[in-house]
Amino acid sequence: MQALKGTSAVSKQQAASVARLGAGANVAPRVVRVPQAAARAGLRAQRRPADSVAAAATATADKTAPAGPGTANGGGGGGTRVMIIGGDGYCGWATALHLSARGYNVSIVDNLCRRQFDLQLGLDTLTPIASAHDRVRKWGEISGKHIDLQIGDICDWEFLSQAFTSFRPDVVVHFGEQRSAPYSMIDRQRAVFTQHNNVIGNINVMFAIKELAPECHLVKLGTMGEYGTPNIDIEEGFITINHNGRTDTLPYPKQGNSFYHLSKIHDSHNIHFATKAWKLAATDLNQGVVYGVRTDETVADPALINRYDYDGIFGTALNRFVVQAAVGHPLTVYGKGGQTRGFLDIRDTVRCIQIAIDNPASRGEFRVFNQFTEQFSVNQLAEIVGREGAKLGLEVTVQNVPNPRVEAEEHYYNAKCSKLQDLGLVPHLLGDSMVDSLLEFVIAYKDRCRMELIKPAVDWRKAGVKVNTMAAAVASK
Amino acid sequence: MQALKGTSAVSKQQAASVARLGAGANVAPRVVRVPQAAARAGLRAQRRPADSVAAAATATADKTAPAGPGTANGGGGGGTRVMIIGGDGYCGWATALHLSARGYNVSIVDNLCRRQFDLQLGLDTLTPIASAHDRVRKWGEISGKHIDLQIGDICDWEFLSQAFTSFRPDVVVHFGEQRSAPYSMIDRQRAVFTQHNNVIGNINVMFAIKELAPECHLVKLGTMGEYGTPNIDIEEGFITINHNGRTDTLPYPKQGNSFYHLSKIHDSHNIHFATKAWKLAATDLNQGVVYGVRTDETVADPALINRYDYDGIFGTALNRFVVQAAVGHPLTVYGKGGQTRGFLDIRDTVRCIQIAIDNPASRGEFRVFNQFTEQFSVNQLAEIVGREGAKLGLEVTVQNVPNPRVEAEEHYYNAKCSKLQDLGLVPHLLGDSMVDSLLEFVIAYKDRCRMELIKPAVDWRKAGVKVNTMAAAVASK
Repeated sequence: MQALKGTSAVSKQQAASVARLGAGANVAPRVVRVPQAAARAGLRAQRRPADSVAAAATATADKTAPAGPGTANGGGGGGTRVMIIGGDGYCGWATALHLSARGYNVSIVDNLCRRQFDLQLGLDTLTPIASAHDRVRKWGEISGKHIDLQIGDICDWEFLSQAFTSFRPDVVVHFGEQRSAPYSMIDRQRAVFTQHNNVIGNINVMFAIKELAPECHLVKLGTMGEYGTPNIDIEEGFITINHNGRTDTLPYPKQGNSFYHLSKIHDSHNIHFATKAWKLAATDLNQGVVYGVRTDETVADPALINRYDYDGIFGTALNRFVVQAAVGHPLTVYGKGGQTRGFLDIRDTVRCIQIAIDNPASRGEFRVFNQFTEQFSVNQLAEIVGREGAKLGLEVTVQNVPNPRVEAEEHYYNAKCSKLQDLGLVPHLLGDSMVDSLLEFVIAYKDRCRMELIKPAVDWRKAGVKVNTMAAAVASK
Repeated sequence: MQALKGTSAVSKQQAASVARLGAGANVAPRVVRVPQAAARAGLRAQRRPADSVAAAATATADKTAPAGPGTANGGGGGGTRVMIIGGDGYCGWATALHLSARGYNVSIVDNLCRRQFDLQLGLDTLTPIASAHDRVRKWGEISGKHIDLQIGDICDWEFLSQAFTSFRPDVVVHFGEQRSAPYSMIDRQRAVFTQHNNVIGNINVMFAIKELAPECHLVKLGTMGEYGTPNIDIEEGFITINHNGRTDTLPYPKQGNSFYHLSKIHDSHNIHFATKAWKLAATDLNQGVVYGVRTDETVADPALINRYDYDGIFGTALNRFVVQAAVGHPLTVYGKGGQTRGFLDIRDTVRCIQIAIDNPASRGEFRVFNQFTEQFSVNQLAEIVGREGAKLGLEVTVQNVPNPRVEAEEHYYNAKCSKLQDLGLVPHLLGDSMVDSLLEFVIAYKDRCRMELIKPAVDWRKAGVKVNTMAAAVASK
């Protein structure tokens, strides 16, 4: 019965979104303020008559976003050419649609390795996603907007340089990295893959910008996990240190807790260097744990639906809990559950990227934003899901399982996240309605859930040299 | 005339060293204190009757090392099995001989890529070095001690795991990384090579220890360049930060100034994680700029001579200045010359490694030592070489050339380096006699100097995507 109710709710929302999309060009407010990136793109367009620079238009109106700076920045892509590396992934796809809907000229660059990981490990997204090609085709039909799609690997310089030369990006949004901590800890091969893929891919992107598009702004996805869990407040990228009577503002000390998190630390150091040595303009977004699946665009058609991971390897804490609640599986809290992290709604992810694009870093600037909106402990998340699940008639239990990770389970955590809000982000907070809406969405797909994928399957201490894809995918018991 | 004098001095020293080596087993002092590593090796030997564990013996007596803890630790390898990755390189070869002479059971693992770089770029060491195979063969003849030699690439897991399984190291000394900042800045391919080779190789070493030799102590060569040039004192690895009323001791913030330096930063972060997640025992040696070429063992026979790089890519500041003085080339000071760094004599490098081995980190410990003995600005180095060169009748001039690097040329610099001295290091200081001896050595080989290799050839700002080996090797005027 819950499932039927959920399905119905989703379908109505999808129908409403489609209707809004169709009418978007008419109802969108006129954009007064011209973001800097759009202005730069306009200047470039004057020099390049072959480019068709679309007029600033908002294809959708985000009914959930409060009025304020966020809304004022809601449109106005102005044809800014945005290359989204990793644009077929969870955050990347939502961002590609969000920007395309708002008049940015989007090119997705993706090697589809995220889909390959599912094949390797026998995993699958809860939601049935369309192929990359069908996604952009459907988006074109619905919105009338073209998204460029270039399938290839950014570690392959020949491919990446051609992608740059053909698309000539004003902005590169770089999501294109292996993004799972457990995946990076499966075995030696995947630890090596993660650091090679992420670090070398990012170096190639930096060289591509330097040599082929030096004015291009790099918007790079990092992670809050770069900071670890220090016993002092976490600042945004840099910290002023007084030491032995002298003072300097230095990169915030980093402590990664998986080969994945470490790869992002390496990227940050490499990018910081490139901003100094080559005057690259870069924004490093230290993102928290993303939850949610719906954005206005991804629910506009079944072919546009975003992926939703709940397995022990790619499922992040809250998304996993919601599925567990929906299917009657105990919420698997790792260890004591005092692990505290920053979280954000995927609707804020896409807004944060837009804000970073519209307010670009200067050349030579290494700008770091902490991209999350609220912090919770794992136990707090479980409590919220339990409370909201009960409202839907779900009986939610919690199971403390041995922590497969090596991490502090009780610790101080106070991370700053004001810079993006200063630039106009109006957060969606994980209030009751948010979880409620997320729960309903997931319930609609609960028949696709495969119970054997839910439990933690990768133990940090056991990462070995034997190739381990089967054991990793299907947890014992 | 200078050249003849130099040659003569070297020859006499070599003859004396050979004599000492032959008599070494008799004149060596009895070692009373048994270092921890040797004791562990002894225990292992009891469990492994097939191993022949050589008695602790000192093959050479270092006439220049003052009496004290350094001398007490001078022997006593006790058959400790030390794998030296990169043992064919500048620091690695000197260390391999130093340890072998003192009763450690040494295995050199090397892919010979340092020699390959010379072939790629048309460079050559000032000193005529023998092949890796001839070196260890000659060492066996002279000393009666066997050094194991395994030629292969640690990025190749199949090779590395076999090397571990066959040698079963108690200690791994990891010099096996691309170690030139300019090399890493030649072009994209070499930036990528440097980070891939260094980071992945080191990850493989960590996995090899974890899975194949979990008690093995990792002694990893880092660089003082990981710290950059902060405006506060540089501590040894960690810094206690008071911030908003709270305190924590965190990894010292890192700022690398080339893809090479950055690769070492990445290694440090990765190793720190492995000590926490897997209880690895690791010592990270943040080494300063090494100068000198003679150690007792490397001058014992012409076939044992160490490499000496003076070119614009692999030649470090002081070594390059000494060659420039010897051949009448102006000392090429990059920019203003206020760049200050930590320096150490290669005879201290080998002692530092031995000290780290004899006083191993505990399992789970990430221990960081700053491995240098004195700090100088480039201008101070030039001044010292000029003064000492004049005593030998050399007319030394200085030429300020545009700085090919991107770095602060006037800055605060105060780095700590007490931990190794607390454990017994008695530094060779860059006094007059040191430069004098180094100058004489270099003068002996000055006819091998190729002037076209001296100038800076790699500009940080111009690192591009076009393969650039020829331009890098031979500077345009």
